[in-house]
This record gives sequence, structure tokens and C-alpha cells, in this order.
Amino acid sequence: MVKEFFYPKTIAIIGATADPKKFGNAVTVNLLENEQLESELFPINPKSTEILGLKSYSSILEVEKDVDLAIILVPSKAVPIIVDQCIEKKVKRIIIVSAGFGEINKEGKRIEQEMARKAREKGIRCIGPNCVGIMNVDTGMNASFILTPPKGNVSMVTQSGSFGAACLYEMKDQGLGFSKFANLGNMSDVNLTDLLRFYLEDNNTKVVCIYLENVIDGRKFYDTLCDLAKIKPTIILKGGRTAYGTTAAASHTGSIATNYSSLKAAIKQSGATLCENLNDYVAAIKAFSFLPLPEGNRVGILTNSGGSAVLFSDNADEFGMKLAEFSEEFKAKITPHIIPLVKKVNPLDLIAGANGETYYQVTKTMLEDPNIDIVVTCAVIPTFLEMTLDEHYSGVVRAWNDTGRKKPIIPIFMSGELVIKSKKIAEKELVPLFLSPRQAAFAVKALIERKQKLQK
Amino acid sequence: MVKEFFYPKTIAIIGATADPKKFGNAVTVNLLENEQLESELFPINPKSTEILGLKSYSSILEVEKDVDLAIILVPSKAVPIIVDQCIEKKVKRIIIVSAGFGEINKEGKRIEQEMARKAREKGIRCIGPNCVGIMNVDTGMNASFILTPPKGNVSMVTQSGSFGAACLYEMKDQGLGFSKFANLGNMSDVNLTDLLRFYLEDNNTKVVCIYLENVIDGRKFYDTLCDLAKIKPTIILKGGRTAYGTTAAASHTGSIATNYSSLKAAIKQSGATLCENLNDYVAAIKAFSFLPLPEGNRVGILTNSGGSAVLFSDNADEFGMKLAEFSEEFKAKITPHIIPLVKKVNPLDLIAGANGETYYQVTKTMLEDPNIDIVVTCAVIPTFLEMTLDEHYSGVVRAWNDTGRKKPIIPIFMSGELVIKSKKIAEKELVPLFLSPRQAAFAVKALIERKQKLQK
Repeated sequence: MVKEFFYPKTIAIIGATADPKKFGNAVTVNLLENEQLESELFPINPKSTEILGLKSYSSILEVEKDVDLAIILVPSKAVPIIVDQCIEKKVKRIIIVSAGFGEINKEGKRIEQEMARKAREKGIRCIGPNCVGIMNVDTGMNASFILTPPKGNVSMVTQSGSFGAACLYEMKDQGLGFSKFANLGNMSDVNLTDLLRFYLEDNNTKVVCIYLENVIDGRKFYDTLCDLAKIKPTIILKGGRTAYGTTAAASHTGSIATNYSSLKAAIKQSGATLCENLNDYVAAIKAFSFLPLPEGNRVGILTNSGGSAVLFSDNADEFGMKLAEFSEEFKAKITPHIIPLVKKVNPLDLIAGANGETYYQVTKTMLEDPNIDIVVTCAVIPTFLEMTLDEHYSGVVRAWNDTGRKKPIIPIFMSGELVIKSKKIAEKELVPLFLSPRQAAFAVKALIERKQKLQK
Repeated sequence: MVKEFFYPKTIAIIGATADPKKFGNAVTVNLLENEQLESELFPINPKSTEILGLKSYSSILEVEKDVDLAIILVPSKAVPIIVDQCIEKKVKRIIIVSAGFGEINKEGKRIEQEMARKAREKGIRCIGPNCVGIMNVDTGMNASFILTPPKGNVSMVTQSGSFGAACLYEMKDQGLGFSKFANLGNMSDVNLTDLLRFYLEDNNTKVVCIYLENVIDGRKFYDTLCDLAKIKPTIILKGGRTAYGTTAAASHTGSIATNYSSLKAAIKQSGATLCENLNDYVAAIKAFSFLPLPEGNRVGILTNSGGSAVLFSDNADEFGMKLAEFSEEFKAKITPHIIPLVKKVNPLDLIAGANGETYYQVTKTMLEDPNIDIVVTCAVIPTFLEMTLDEHYSGVVRAWNDTGRKKPIIPIFMSGELVIKSKKIAEKELVPLFLSPRQAAFAVKALIERKQKLQK
């Protein structure tokens, strides 16, 4: 049912315009600029005959072909008439981007419900109103007014449009790629549960992430979440956990607050990963997008900086992980690669002089060790001893590749701008890079908890 | 006593070398490359007569002039002899960068204590061993093997050298500048309290930040912290809060664990700001480095993205802030600048179409409002309607400047790489930029708590 939104053969853009000062322009440009897109586009604007090189139509009723998806970008007052025209045209799916409905007042709510009811009677499903739109990154369809992210295995649904955009951009910056994106706005028809059912079945979606403010049908949502989390890692960032937060959420979506403590328990029970801030959210998504699950909870840590490992160890303790005990065999194996000053304890502090080759050898030995389930490689990027800025990260990636990427690897690389070269490698090789001990620790926690849940 | 380390007229670099594969080279280069530095440098190396264009000496005893500061970079075995020579030469201060002492074993501890005792008997004070060195960014003296950060008003002391470097680089990346930096290593002589006493008196140091693992003399540390926090914001990141963390800390510094819960209470009592992760640490330092303290705890929020304001509101609630109630006067003042769809409630969601001018006007009105003590401006950077990537941030900065920078301004600008232009403005204008709602909320919390503490 939701799938049809993401694979339209024909798309009408109602309110398309060449005027860059309008949202209708942003959506049209986003749809047009991807040459890979196979959907046929029909810009609709009564004041034009051509828009950005495409023939345009004064009304959707003039389009000769069948329309699979109509995207509505006209001012709110005109939307009901346009929806009527879409029904008359027998379009299959409608996305109403325009704002000014249920999020404003009761009359707006009534109007949006009326439009949804009319469409639904004819078998037409609606997304919106008051949304930024959707994307199918796989096919290159960006039916929204935000930027297209790189391709990948993550699908997102967000209950705040612009914030969803910010998340996308942040995640792109941290090496993540996407399959689908959706912002459902006021959910006058298609709701969160409907969308999650689609992500559940979508083959390109390996990881699902949700920015959640409120839940309408608790039972259905819970059941869907259980089904989903059973087969795909599902990460939820919850906004509106407190009195101030729920008031703010109600104000921008016009929705009713959900009791957080019971929702929290339900999410935990479902097997999804719950996050309370953006940093944790991105950390968990990175972990699930790039890493296999660990067999157990024994963590091996190597570092060139005492403090980083100390802070990670604090988080490991707080999150209930186990630091692996190094076996005599392991100690013997690493001895040729470390200087005598290094104490053979976990965390293994290789000291500031350790280079990329040392990182490669020690990481590889840890990844091969039967007593270690997860390998955490901390590094402060050295700017001395002729070391290159990326040799430590390269060493870690090489060790992970050489051992068949079987265990999760958690590289924590700090140092501001000095990390840029390593970030490029991370993007290219599809390996995560964590920017702080806390972010990395949350990722490890999420992996371990998912493994434990699946084993039950 | 500690001041002399930071203002030497003459510096001997013992173990200086042109070989870029050695730490002695990194320190020599760091000292040499700043042309502004007025200290005279004496490289010491028995195997050279010239190092990097400077005349070099085979021993410190050959240097004709008095030596204010001797930096020792030779292998640990040779260090005691070199210290004896420094004593014979009557140098004023010694920094032992070399590792391989108390952090390794008891014999190492004995040797470092013996060296410190001998020096101290002659009135010579020592920093180290096992440290990355110190910097006086004001004068351009980088007596360490890490990179020189930009100038500013923050002074740092770190109990983990490399991690301190990572913090410096992260903070630089987030627009912060520095006055002094010190890593004290094993603290065989000069300890944390001594250094903090110096920061207390140092005029260029407006903000003090500490990466703390353990406290040796609890009472003196507490008293110093109280004195310091009374006049300068003091931010502490504590590593080694848990069993795993303290074990890791003991391993890399050879020190004994400090009970965290009592230390936590003491830090809180002193008026310093306690942080448990890097993100909070940098957030608080940014706040204190750039912002005035608020008169009260009433927060006004504006946003172009519902979700960002929801997440900030959650944190505001959790941290005990108050969201300001908008007065009728305030509502009337903003009306000409906002579209009718905007609801005049706090957080004020200006919706995705709001531009830089709207941000300027609304931010200014909030800054001028007597019912608002702190202004939080959330933004997701828009990529549509011909808006420029930095116009919102520019608008906020302009509003802050036009109102005399009297109230704290908390810009939360998310969007991955799209933030870069705003970051450049932040650096130039010395305005903070926060990268997530949680980071910003911690900053606000730190400002409010400091104000409340000072009012008592």
C-alpha cells in the first residue's frame, strides 16, 4: 500500500514553478536533477506552459497519461480543490506538502480529515499535509524539498520534517547512506505504522530509524515495532519525553502527547533501540548500518591515549559491558609489535609513538582472539614522528578486512579537523568512525543489547 | 612558582634532533616554528653541532647563558644524569617529557621522586616525567610535541597528554582559542593544584578546563578549586568514575583511584562545572569562553524546525530550566516579522520558510525582552527558497551584536557539512555555535548554575 508512493512511473508536481523563492521550485528541481530517475514528470501550474525545460500543464486533468503520484505544493486554501481534481484524475497516491491544516487549528484538522476520507473512498492514499515529502534514494526519486543523501542501507521516517533533514545531513557527514526517507506530516491518512510495515518488507532497507514524537495507535505501533525489530535493527530517537518537550511537540504537529514512561517500556520490550539525543541516535545507526552483531559482550580496547580509553572504560562499565581479560597467548602474540613500556592489560595503551602498522597488528590480533567479541580502537591522531594523519585508521580498516569483517570494530578517532582523511576512508570503505568515547560506547551497547534480545 | 615555566627567556632542549622520527624533533620544531617567540633556544645533542639552523651544544653545561627552562627528551635511562647536569647548570625549571618512570613500576617511581627531590633542594621545580609538555599560546611558546592551537581565553590542564591534544583539536574545530596548556604527566613535583594556582592568577586565563583522573591532595585541591571557581569558570571532565575507568586510569598514570562520589560532591560544592563526557565538556567551555552569565533561568527558543526545539525543550525540562512565557507586548513586536501560520508560543516555530532577516528580527526582539534571560536559536540550514547557508547564523550574530551582547545567545545549528560557513563566522566573531540540542542545553545549564552559585 505504501510501496506505491516510492515507485511511481508518473509524477505530477502540482504547484511546480521556476521561481526559486517557492517550495514548489525546490521539489521540482530535486525531482528533475537526478538523471537516473525513470519516473515521468508532469509539472502543473496554471500560469506556465513550460517549467525548467519540461512541458507544463495548467491542471492535472490535462495530463494525458495516468498519474501514479501527485505532489501538492499549492497554498493551503487551494489544496482541497486540487485534491478533488486528483480524485477525478484517479491518481494512485497523493503527497500534500502544503502546511496550514491540523497543526494550526481544529478547522484545519477537519479539512485535512475530509480530504483524506474522500481520497480513501476511491482507494487513493495520502501522505501529509504539512510534510517535507519522501525519497527513494535507490531509484533517485527525491519528492521533497531537502537534499538527496548518498545511497545506503538505512531508511528513515521522521515526525519532524526539517529536523529529519538535519539528521540526514549529519548522518551523511558521518558516512551513512540511505535507501528511503519519509516525513509524514500530520498523518491525516498514511501513518507511522503503515510506513514501518513497508520498511519491514522493503529489501533495500536493512536498518530503520525513526524520529518519534507521538504514537496514535499504540497497540498497532507496538506490534509493528516487534515485527520490525525482529528482523531489522530499528533505532528510535524520541522527542517529547518531558512536559516542556510534549508541549513543544503538540504545538508543531497538532498532536496529543504520548506517556513516555510506558512508551519507553514498550520500545525496550519490542527490541528496538531507544535514544534520547541525536548523538546516540547517529551512533546506533552507524553501528547497525556497518557492523555485524557481536557473539558476546567482551570488549578489547587499544589506544594511543590513556584518557580516551579511560573515558570509554567508564562508559563500558556504566553500560554493563565486560572488558576482556587478555590470555597469555594473546600477550605473546602482541609482544613483537609493541614497545617494552607497554603494559599488557586491557585497555592496551600503546602510547603516543604507536604507528599505523602497530595499530594493524594489534587490532588484527584482537579480532582473531577467541576471548574478545568486540574491538574498540581509540586514537588521537598524532602529528609527530612522521606519521601520516590516516595511517592508524587505515591500519584498523585493513585489520578488519583481513579478518573477514566478522566481529564488530569500533574505531574512536578524535582530533577535530585532523580526522578528515580518516573520514574519507570510512566513507569509501563503509566502516564506521566514532567521534567520542561516549558515542562509541552507546554503539557497542546497542549492538550487544540487540544480540541478547535476538538470542532470547 | 609555576609562572616561570611559562615565561622563560632561555630554553634548553635536551635531546633536540633534526630526525623527524623522534619526539625531540617535534618539540624542537614546535618551539622553532613560531617566529613571534622571544625566548632564546639552545638545542642540546652530543651528536650534533647544528640542529635545524640553530647552533647546538653537546651538553647543557656548555651553554654560556643562564637557562630558565630545560626540556628533557632523552630516553628514560639517561634522564637522571641529565637532571644532575641541569642542577649543576642551575637551570630554573625542568620539564621531563620522557616516559618510563612511575607509570611503569615502583623503581621508576623511586627514580622520578629522587630526581624531583634533588632538584627541589636547589630550588628547581620539575614538570613530568611522562608528559607532552606545556604551551604559552600568548607568547607563542609551544614546549610540547602537539600542535599549537589558536589564541584565546581558555587555559587547560590535562592528566592525559594525548587525550588533552585531542580535546585541544576538537575545541579548535569548535572555534575555541587558548591561553595556556599543560600536561603534568606523573606529577613527581609540580602537581595539579600548583598549576591551578597559577591559572588563578594569570590575567589572560578567563576560563579554566581540566581533564581530571585523580586527585592527590584532596583538601588542597578542593580549596584551590573553590578559590578558582569563585572568579573564573572552571570546567572539569572526570575520567575514572567507575571500576573499569579507574583501573584504566591507574594503569596509564601509575596513580591511585579517587572515590568518585565524594569527589563529585566536592566539585559541585566548589562551584566548578562537572562533565562526564567530551561533548558536555566542550559545550560548557564554549559557553563560558564566549558568553555572559544570564540574569535568570527563563529561556526563549526560536526555531525553523519543530523537532530541534522539542529535543531542546526536553533537555531544558530535564535540566530544570524555565521556558519563558511570551508577553502580549512581545507577541505584538514579532507579528510584523512572522507569517500568519506561526503560533506565538515558546518555542516559537518560525517554520521552514523563515529567512535570515526573520531570524535577526525575532532574535533581537527576544534579546530585548525583559521576560527572557537566555535566547536559544535552533536552525536546520535550509537549502531552498534561495536562502544562503549562513544567513540565519549571520542574523543571530547581528542581533546579538546590535543588543550589545548582554544576554547569552545559544545558536544550535545542525546540518552536517552545511554548517561550515556558519562555523567560519562563529570563529571570526567569537560567538559560539552548538551542534546539537543536548550540547546546547548542557551549556545553558552550566551558565545558569554558575550564576546561581555566584549569587549565593
